[in-house]
Amino acid sequence: MQQSIDQLCVNTIRTLSMDAVQKANSGHPGMPMGMADVAYVLFQKFMRHNPANPKWVNRDRFVLSAGHGSMLLYSMLHLTGYDVTLDDIKNFRQWGSKTPGHPEFGHTPGVETTTGPLGQGFANGVGMAFAEAHLAAKLNTPDFQVINHYTYAIVSDGDLMEGISHEAASFAGHQKLGKLIYLYDDNSISIEGDTAVAFTEDTQKRFEAYGWHVQKIDGHDRDAIEKAIKNAQAESGKPSIICCKTKIGFGSPNKEGKEESHGAPLGKDEIKLTKAAYGWTFEEDFYIPAEVKEQMNIALTYGKQREHEWLAMMEDFKKSDENAYSAAVQLLSSELPKGWDENLPVYAADAKGVATRKASGKTLNHFAKKIPFLLGGSADLAGSNLSEIEGEAFIQADDYSVRNIHFGVREHAMTSIANGMVMHGVLKPYVATFLVFSDYSKPAIRVAALSKIDPILLFTHDSIGLGEDGPTHQPIEHLTALRAIPNVIVLRPADANEVVYSWKIAIETRNAPVALVMTRQNLPIYERNDSNPASLTEKGGYILSESSKAPQVILIGTGSEVQYALEAQKVLEAEGISARVVSMPSLELFNKQDAVYKESILPKSVTKRVVIEAGTTMPWYKVVGSEGAVIGIDHFGASAPFEVLYKEFGFTTENVVKTAKSIL
Amino acid sequence: MQQSIDQLCVNTIRTLSMDAVQKANSGHPGMPMGMADVAYVLFQKFMRHNPANPKWVNRDRFVLSAGHGSMLLYSMLHLTGYDVTLDDIKNFRQWGSKTPGHPEFGHTPGVETTTGPLGQGFANGVGMAFAEAHLAAKLNTPDFQVINHYTYAIVSDGDLMEGISHEAASFAGHQKLGKLIYLYDDNSISIEGDTAVAFTEDTQKRFEAYGWHVQKIDGHDRDAIEKAIKNAQAESGKPSIICCKTKIGFGSPNKEGKEESHGAPLGKDEIKLTKAAYGWTFEEDFYIPAEVKEQMNIALTYGKQREHEWLAMMEDFKKSDENAYSAAVQLLSSELPKGWDENLPVYAADAKGVATRKASGKTLNHFAKKIPFLLGGSADLAGSNLSEIEGEAFIQADDYSVRNIHFGVREHAMTSIANGMVMHGVLKPYVATFLVFSDYSKPAIRVAALSKIDPILLFTHDSIGLGEDGPTHQPIEHLTALRAIPNVIVLRPADANEVVYSWKIAIETRNAPVALVMTRQNLPIYERNDSNPASLTEKGGYILSESSKAPQVILIGTGSEVQYALEAQKVLEAEGISARVVSMPSLELFNKQDAVYKESILPKSVTKRVVIEAGTTMPWYKVVGSEGAVIGIDHFGASAPFEVLYKEFGFTTENVVKTAKSIL
Repeated sequence: MQQSIDQLCVNTIRTLSMDAVQKANSGHPGMPMGMADVAYVLFQKFMRHNPANPKWVNRDRFVLSAGHGSMLLYSMLHLTGYDVTLDDIKNFRQWGSKTPGHPEFGHTPGVETTTGPLGQGFANGVGMAFAEAHLAAKLNTPDFQVINHYTYAIVSDGDLMEGISHEAASFAGHQKLGKLIYLYDDNSISIEGDTAVAFTEDTQKRFEAYGWHVQKIDGHDRDAIEKAIKNAQAESGKPSIICCKTKIGFGSPNKEGKEESHGAPLGKDEIKLTKAAYGWTFEEDFYIPAEVKEQMNIALTYGKQREHEWLAMMEDFKKSDENAYSAAVQLLSSELPKGWDENLPVYAADAKGVATRKASGKTLNHFAKKIPFLLGGSADLAGSNLSEIEGEAFIQADDYSVRNIHFGVREHAMTSIANGMVMHGVLKPYVATFLVFSDYSKPAIRVAALSKIDPILLFTHDSIGLGEDGPTHQPIEHLTALRAIPNVIVLRPADANEVVYSWKIAIETRNAPVALVMTRQNLPIYERNDSNPASLTEKGGYILSESSKAPQVILIGTGSEVQYALEAQKVLEAEGISARVVSMPSLELFNKQDAVYKESILPKSVTKRVVIEAGTTMPWYKVVGSEGAVIGIDHFGASAPFEVLYKEFGFTTENVVKTAKSIL
Repeated sequence: MQQSIDQLCVNTIRTLSMDAVQKANSGHPGMPMGMADVAYVLFQKFMRHNPANPKWVNRDRFVLSAGHGSMLLYSMLHLTGYDVTLDDIKNFRQWGSKTPGHPEFGHTPGVETTTGPLGQGFANGVGMAFAEAHLAAKLNTPDFQVINHYTYAIVSDGDLMEGISHEAASFAGHQKLGKLIYLYDDNSISIEGDTAVAFTEDTQKRFEAYGWHVQKIDGHDRDAIEKAIKNAQAESGKPSIICCKTKIGFGSPNKEGKEESHGAPLGKDEIKLTKAAYGWTFEEDFYIPAEVKEQMNIALTYGKQREHEWLAMMEDFKKSDENAYSAAVQLLSSELPKGWDENLPVYAADAKGVATRKASGKTLNHFAKKIPFLLGGSADLAGSNLSEIEGEAFIQADDYSVRNIHFGVREHAMTSIANGMVMHGVLKPYVATFLVFSDYSKPAIRVAALSKIDPILLFTHDSIGLGEDGPTHQPIEHLTALRAIPNVIVLRPADANEVVYSWKIAIETRNAPVALVMTRQNLPIYERNDSNPASLTEKGGYILSESSKAPQVILIGTGSEVQYALEAQKVLEAEGISARVVSMPSLELFNKQDAVYKESILPKSVTKRVVIEAGTTMPWYKVVGSEGAVIGIDHFGASAPFEVLYKEFGFTTENVVKTAKSIL
């Protein structure tokens, strides 16, 4: 059967995907087969990207939110000339390969975000489009469109069922992100069968309600796909979703349109039948016809040309306005400007002190003045999180150039949108809510950690210290939960000066999300001298107050509980017990120090150690060992003024003293 | 100013709320003031409940999803005759009071669910209406409506922004829950100001898209409220939402319609002005006019009468069909039927074995036959979670009487809906997904734990052992995260026989959520004898295989890693090192045992201990102490066949042997 070059390309995408899943003996062939037409039209006719430079800042972004269809993405990356070889495809899902089961940001060239956990990619794409809108508003001039690109995504039924997609869609509609174009794989099949068993909402109407431009097409009609994407581009005041009716497992005589094609290899026999149905005449597995290579490799040619044109435009920009150009280049480099960490705020010792959230708000504003790519907002708690950049407005569709963001009560999408902003490549976003509501955004924090990206997570109201709002709002297990995630750095500063360095660390960390954990209530500001400068925060743990003699006991505290360790030290010393006080704002950073430093803070010989932290005790047993003790809280809190709670639950100087004596 | 008794009642609700917040010097007066008309009409004209018996099974349910407006609920409970005294109201937000900052299930009579974390109540209500539909379909006859009640909720802007509300709304629309009626406090104010700053979706259209019946009214027009609720009741084929345009802080001359009235006391002066604006002539704080008491106390009279009528109807039912009556009473008692735990499945020892998820599916089906109120489903992974009750259909609007549920890809709402089903009072739901996606439902798990309720959380694919799907799907920190939540019981059985007892524990636990954690891959089935019966699973930890002599080292494993401990034991014993193997399916249950039992398993004298578990190491340092070691995984996994991952990441017999030797 003679077929058009377009058809041959589409079938190549399908057969590559089928073969890779079959060879791996696991994976998801049905979605790549169903969405091959859409992906082909999008990449061949619309995507402005340069496979030779996956980091070109003005490229169109493509997100495969339905990450289980990873072979669709890997096939496209290979065929359009990214550094994903045929051998990589043949090693799909194998140890050490570039082609893991689900796409991973930073792992494979051309993969713009980590997907698989449903809904994440949907919200990441919103973050990318939002970053684009912000940068365009900030940098573009009438003559020079420094940043001007689309963000596309393929999204699935599963994405649209997840709550995060609703949150992100509502946000995107509100912000009128006109250059966001989503292609919805409306294949009517979920793992448990027809989507009609659980998913019968009127999707089109729902997206219209969110302020989106909605189209519905046959996802196997390539002309219709092309026309729809053009329409979506033409609608510049709204995000677009194109509902593509497709057949999952397209062309498989026995599995097309059935859930059987979703998550398992088709089987050798069915592959044979399917290839025959495609009119595919090549015997060899993983075969790519020469004319397909040629046809799809134009992405490389066009891509280089497009980046070249952009670079030439930037040269003209430089000639036209060197200052504006330099500022743009500096911003786009995402490098911290010279002197960004000079003249840090210093707080004088003060027994009454200040809530760390307040010091945080001031520190944020200090850094925001110096770092143009720092921006963010709160999930409707800005006044409590103290997360606003003063003197700047909030981003709305009439002005994307400012730096405050109203995320609404949407913690999950907020965090995932921030992830998208980071993965876009330039911005350093922070997002804020109460620590207890970090739960709502956990899946997005995990994606950030796995992707080695660096959103700043500002969590205030960090313990039972928030008081009267009660146990629904009092974090207990949350420090533990955050610390348990690989590659998350948690910082819980003990006073205003530690806050300053905690923010500094968060800003300079570029390969991990950093959680900044702040109190609602006032904390003392401690005396500092050459031996205990607040800059030691960067070590994760340090001696805040040394014992009079060689320490018999080490009192370790974090955040608001350090004050009780310090008071207890006085009491113990007065009774002739020498006690060292260690402030340990970050277990993760402390663990990264060398053995000599760690030994200098927590000598192996001093086995009597007491930790005090208003959270679950679990993280601390490794630190205190068999002879130490942990003062924490392994049950829920209660609703009462915080002073009452601290006393009732044992967060007192007396209890630290008593506990220390009990182990000595 | 002369005012109607209705107006006086509404103003009493408002003034009580204002006064309580003022006295507590914290809380949220604006919402109770804004929604007092709605709450009054609902309770006075519609709610069929008996304040004298808050557990009457056929009562209407009322959920205050906007839990920050707790004083509205407490005011209503007091005024309608629940056991919430005026002193309780005066002790709002104080230590030991019945009136915490946010409503807590099980803490205050008449509080149907724990709210505050936004969106939870919205989904809980869906669960209650779903439970009602199921029980009604199961128990009612043409003559006897054993279960026939409405579920009402007040929901807020914040609820509607949270993704979980979208998930739950879509589910409720799909299931056509006609007796679910939500009153939306459309007050246009969020904490960061006008909702227009972040929330401009067309809410009415959105709910229509989900298949809801939507009305829009003036929330201060009591006739309109009454008419709208009647309309909502008349629409029996769809859930209803009534968008009530209200003024937050109603009547406050300086704060009405402003965010200032949302989350802080009005202040004494503003309260004076507001009371004057209401025409409130009483000087005393917390004043309740006698005629208001009389008017609202009819809830008690009517309530008793209604429950009495229901009891009389049940008597007639008994006379008409004693068997059906007895079955209904047995079911509604939510008591486990006699013999429910007899003849438990027993698996013979088998080296090849079976995946614990498979044994779980069989065990579930064993218990489902015996326990009529056990029901559940998966977030679109039934075929992988093996969570289906065989021989029964899935609940759809045309038949609510069956016991399988398609939740769709909505882990968060699924769990919160299950919470609602539990709090409804009769059913024992289980919900299933991959362990890694427990993240998506974390906020709902926390509410369950705090509320001391008992949904069963079935999590399969419990480690890197799931293999090729890769790190996006491989749980690492999740056992730690679940264990860190107070009042959650985690069980990770080591073989098919431990699975049976894990399910038994989950079913008989009535005051805590139980997480059942199962493998994707096959596990050996171990030899059992009188000294190591699988029933010891109930102790949380036990000696699976004793050392030949007094143990020099104790090897502790959970789930799939127990096999390596057992193999290592053989190797060590062969080399003359006596090693005990402890299977520790549940740290929480083990910690609940008495000191004698714990000492018999982990004697203090045996300080050389090795734990092996394919998760973060954090939970185990308390167990191993300073002289032990933990084999775990504190980084993300990878995409490859599971055998490769186990080897690469050190989950091998050799590594257990090596580690044991290194500490000896």
